[in-house]
Amino acid sequence: MVDKKDMAFGTAVAALRRLGDTSVWSLIVTVMGDSAARKGDKIAGPVLAQILEPVGVRPEALRVALHRLRKDGWIVSDKTGRTSVHRLTDKGLAETRVAASRIYQRQVNFPDQWYLFWAEPEETPPPPEGMLRLGRGMFLGQGEAPDCADFLMMQGHVKSVPQWLQTRLAGPDLMLAFDHLAAALNEVTETLVNTSGLSPLQIATLRMLIVHHWRRSLLKHPDLPLGFFPDGWQGGACRGLVMGLLDRLGRP
Amino acid sequence: MVDKKDMAFGTAVAALRRLGDTSVWSLIVTVMGDSAARKGDKIAGPVLAQILEPVGVRPEALRVALHRLRKDGWIVSDKTGRTSVHRLTDKGLAETRVAASRIYQRQVNFPDQWYLFWAEPEETPPPPEGMLRLGRGMFLGQGEAPDCADFLMMQGHVKSVPQWLQTRLAGPDLMLAFDHLAAALNEVTETLVNTSGLSPLQIATLRMLIVHHWRRSLLKHPDLPLGFFPDGWQGGACRGLVMGLLDRLGRP
Repeated sequence: MVDKKDMAFGTAVAALRRLGDTSVWSLIVTVMGDSAARKGDKIAGPVLAQILEPVGVRPEALRVALHRLRKDGWIVSDKTGRTSVHRLTDKGLAETRVAASRIYQRQVNFPDQWYLFWAEPEETPPPPEGMLRLGRGMFLGQGEAPDCADFLMMQGHVKSVPQWLQTRLAGPDLMLAFDHLAAALNEVTETLVNTSGLSPLQIATLRMLIVHHWRRSLLKHPDLPLGFFPDGWQGGACRGLVMGLLDRLGRP
Repeated sequence: MVDKKDMAFGTAVAALRRLGDTSVWSLIVTVMGDSAARKGDKIAGPVLAQILEPVGVRPEALRVALHRLRKDGWIVSDKTGRTSVHRLTDKGLAETRVAASRIYQRQVNFPDQWYLFWAEPEETPPPPEGMLRLGRGMFLGQGEAPDCADFLMMQGHVKSVPQWLQTRLAGPDLMLAFDHLAAALNEVTETLVNTSGLSPLQIATLRMLIVHHWRRSLLKHPDLPLGFFPDGWQGGACRGLVMGLLDRLGRP
């Protein structure tokens, strides 16, 4: 007999799975990033299998994905008796940390000062590091502008962003992905009003799905104030829903 | 016998004439702008002829140029007895005033605040009025930015101007023209240490030549702070020399 907790878990998983198929490879990266992101952290093969099982990942598919991750230098697997234990490589840890700094950020604060660098494309200076490319020869930076002799530089604040640029920063596909993500996260939030009866494995599965879909859309756009995005932008709302759910679920 | 004043006058005229040939048409526009720029101001044909005579303008060339100016709607000529009297038309007065506001400006003050408007060329919004075009899709304005939905707008201050843009705002030809103008104005300033013995007609001729060559280079570039121009820019020095000479010569 399925109890209420398991029904709620099933409803939440279904809502998140409707957001689209995901590769096993990519789900493992998410799990490792969510629960084994410090140097020395390990995750046992059977535990990984149980976390992925509710998403329909079979042991064979898991083996293939783990093999690929080892080959790409993301993870290392050791045998402890008959059990495989997996951990992120230094490269895997480093890339995970970069992504995590955006994925788990509760609030994005922006400076008062911004700067623009502009050069005619045919002047072809190398694009400035760390700046956001807005278009041909046009780059945006936050804070105090560094010295650079090749560009026209203006320091100040962005007064308005035209619609065509908003659409370039977040196109219709991304807008729709965030609409769907917000709807799914709202459904999960309503379904999991009380999370006290969930098992650690169920929590790990839910966290994986939430973080995975959040990351997928998040890393498709730069962090920018609301005025840079088209009307109806759900990115900020999704961040709030993700942080609320992760807080409520807690670490497994 | 040529007296000292006439020799100094001749030297000054020669220094200014070495700056290059000028059309008679254009010289008349300068004289009218310098001495008949208010509504109702008139200048008699014989006076005009005497002002232009030291520059080598013959009566026939003057007649042709006056005819052309009448045809273009710049001047109107009336007969008073046997003497022609010329005055600027409303159109001539209006265009003269626009140019005069830059030509006779003693000092150019710039605001703290500037703004940039940028759009990708293929977005093709109409270029904003009154702004300086720096390149494809890029415009610069002074003061407080107006509202405009089609451009990315940044309000602030220009931190640096790259060399390629300085060269675009003042190319090698203009740099050289200002070098020559500065040299000629320095020579005239040294030659005319004392202007008390010059005749009103001589003063008018000198003012015409000074204003004419100043205007010719001045109107080839926008008014911008020093940092927008290449190293060695003589535009500011020339403004000081022109104002100094006009003050010293006085109105004829």
